[in-house]
Amino acid sequence: MGIDDLPVRDELRGQSPYGAPQLHVPVQLNTNENPYQLPEPLVARIAERVAEAARNLNRYPDRDAVELRTELARYLTRTTGFERGLEQVWAANGSNEVIQQLLQTFGGPGRSALGFEPSYQMHELISRGTGTRWIAGPRRADFTIDVENAVEALAEHRPDVLFICSPNNPTGTAVERETVLALYEAAQAVKPTLVIVDEAYVEFSHRASLLPLLEGRPLLVVTRTMSKAFGAAGLRLGYLAADRAVVDAVQLVRLPYHLSAVTQATALACLEHTDTLLGYVEKLKAERDRVVEALRAMGLSVTDSDSNFIQFGTFEDPQAVWQAVLDQGVLVRNNGVPGRLRVTAGTPAENDAFLAAVATVIKEL
Amino acid sequence: MGIDDLPVRDELRGQSPYGAPQLHVPVQLNTNENPYQLPEPLVARIAERVAEAARNLNRYPDRDAVELRTELARYLTRTTGFERGLEQVWAANGSNEVIQQLLQTFGGPGRSALGFEPSYQMHELISRGTGTRWIAGPRRADFTIDVENAVEALAEHRPDVLFICSPNNPTGTAVERETVLALYEAAQAVKPTLVIVDEAYVEFSHRASLLPLLEGRPLLVVTRTMSKAFGAAGLRLGYLAADRAVVDAVQLVRLPYHLSAVTQATALACLEHTDTLLGYVEKLKAERDRVVEALRAMGLSVTDSDSNFIQFGTFEDPQAVWQAVLDQGVLVRNNGVPGRLRVTAGTPAENDAFLAAVATVIKEL
Repeated sequence: MGIDDLPVRDELRGQSPYGAPQLHVPVQLNTNENPYQLPEPLVARIAERVAEAARNLNRYPDRDAVELRTELARYLTRTTGFERGLEQVWAANGSNEVIQQLLQTFGGPGRSALGFEPSYQMHELISRGTGTRWIAGPRRADFTIDVENAVEALAEHRPDVLFICSPNNPTGTAVERETVLALYEAAQAVKPTLVIVDEAYVEFSHRASLLPLLEGRPLLVVTRTMSKAFGAAGLRLGYLAADRAVVDAVQLVRLPYHLSAVTQATALACLEHTDTLLGYVEKLKAERDRVVEALRAMGLSVTDSDSNFIQFGTFEDPQAVWQAVLDQGVLVRNNGVPGRLRVTAGTPAENDAFLAAVATVIKEL
Repeated sequence: MGIDDLPVRDELRGQSPYGAPQLHVPVQLNTNENPYQLPEPLVARIAERVAEAARNLNRYPDRDAVELRTELARYLTRTTGFERGLEQVWAANGSNEVIQQLLQTFGGPGRSALGFEPSYQMHELISRGTGTRWIAGPRRADFTIDVENAVEALAEHRPDVLFICSPNNPTGTAVERETVLALYEAAQAVKPTLVIVDEAYVEFSHRASLLPLLEGRPLLVVTRTMSKAFGAAGLRLGYLAADRAVVDAVQLVRLPYHLSAVTQATALACLEHTDTLLGYVEKLKAERDRVVEALRAMGLSVTDSDSNFIQFGTFEDPQAVWQAVLDQGVLVRNNGVPGRLRVTAGTPAENDAFLAAVATVIKEL
């Protein structure tokens, strides 16, 4: 008995679950995790807040996550200077679940979503998972978005949802403010379109957050995560900022009590330690810049990075390079972008190991 | 700007988010929560396991939740005598998410699901949320399932997914084994149909779990939760047992890393304390039986209960009775079943308060 003997949906036949191979090697730089463990005082605070929450674990959690959304709004206000309140913020189990809720509300059967490829593959997968037709939009050869081409694609395909990933995963570069503005206007000129700016990696960017663009744009949504800058990939806490009406709307499709009391307690503890965690972000930005320069000094082509990861190449056979680097104990990612691989910025020692492995491998190419 | 000004899906217009009113009153018996707080040794163990997990929170959680699924399988094996292994168990953020994943895999656009109403309202809501057409199947006036009528409904509507809630929420009674067998066979005779037996409340039942029926029935799924018997509604941990192929299939639609490291750690701690928690279940069953008898002694009509809640009536105006009981400081639930209300079994003191409130209210009817 296998999957294909079951009455699963036709579009699932022959598919494999999404996810990078979980290999155990000395240096893991393949999933854009933050390499710094949470500091001990924060671990202790998490234990304390979770214990408090656990005493009442027999009760359902706060369905509206009021305290958590208030603190997330405060974090956004503080780091962008653009004031947000509880009513303009929503949280879920990872930005994947946030995006799923948005697509259940604004996409779904009979509707479509457009993203500029290559980009975060989950945008396509969650679209398909919610019955939303996926449209692959164009990028330039340097992986930036050509506004003229993009506007043509919007006019031709008339999507209901538009994804703009900034900084873009897996290529690394942030999208210019003017580009986002032009795409928002162009999309609305065709039909009312939800525009989702995915800022999962924005804390690592050279550019400012696009959050202030929310002002006066009721169909713009900015998604965020605590997985990267907060070093809490294991927590699964994603959130969005948007017009209050959008926040109200996703509550029509969210599963009731979707966010556990332990998740809420842990996220609140992490938010208490924002300054320490953003200190690690500064270290990672410096390391990222060092790795970019070192790779370029080796003669490699490196895409500008506003993220905690770097796209590099070009290789005739990226999979062979991926394997050769892995043979040296360093796991990077082959996202299927022709000629390129992606590496996460790790600790200085991890980055040194990666650079040494690449130097060895390219000598033999 | 309101929801209806946004380009949300047509079927969401005019809807309200699902959920019981969250009122703060002395005695809350409206959402079938377990009234017993987690014992202090378990709270301490949760803090310990979460602290361990928090140290590596910068890494993504085990995507396959291997340790947790192994322990859930062990719990099922131990309490039902029917052996299950890791590969036959799947877990998610509440049984709501488990059901959502099943419907994304086996339901969805162009497909339908049938349940016998009244039943757990989320079966319908998650069906609609995944684009699955909902079909309301029939029950007898005493809320049991009439096999002959049910088989006719299956032949007429040809659903892709069939829900059987046992014990049934909000009516309280478990479904007979023979009924489930007959419905499974009848459904398969029409077309391959996923049959979901929702056993959220089974630990409170007078009857044995239907889990052993999984043997030789690859399209049968049993869903469970830690919200009720484990006293952990705040944890949001639901799971299912099924053929290995079904478990493989839901992994095609699950969001990657859907289950956080803190959720996995907390659930594992709770599973270490199974015996203590099942001790509370025995207390609640005795209290449930006492409340059933006391309500019947007042002359009320009470549906047989295999759950930690009780359906009682009949009232000409259940909403007025709900309000009158609330005015006495006791919150129960009006699920919209004509003439009936539902009350959760609480602590002895809470149940006494509830019974006193009802006695006062019905005197004035």
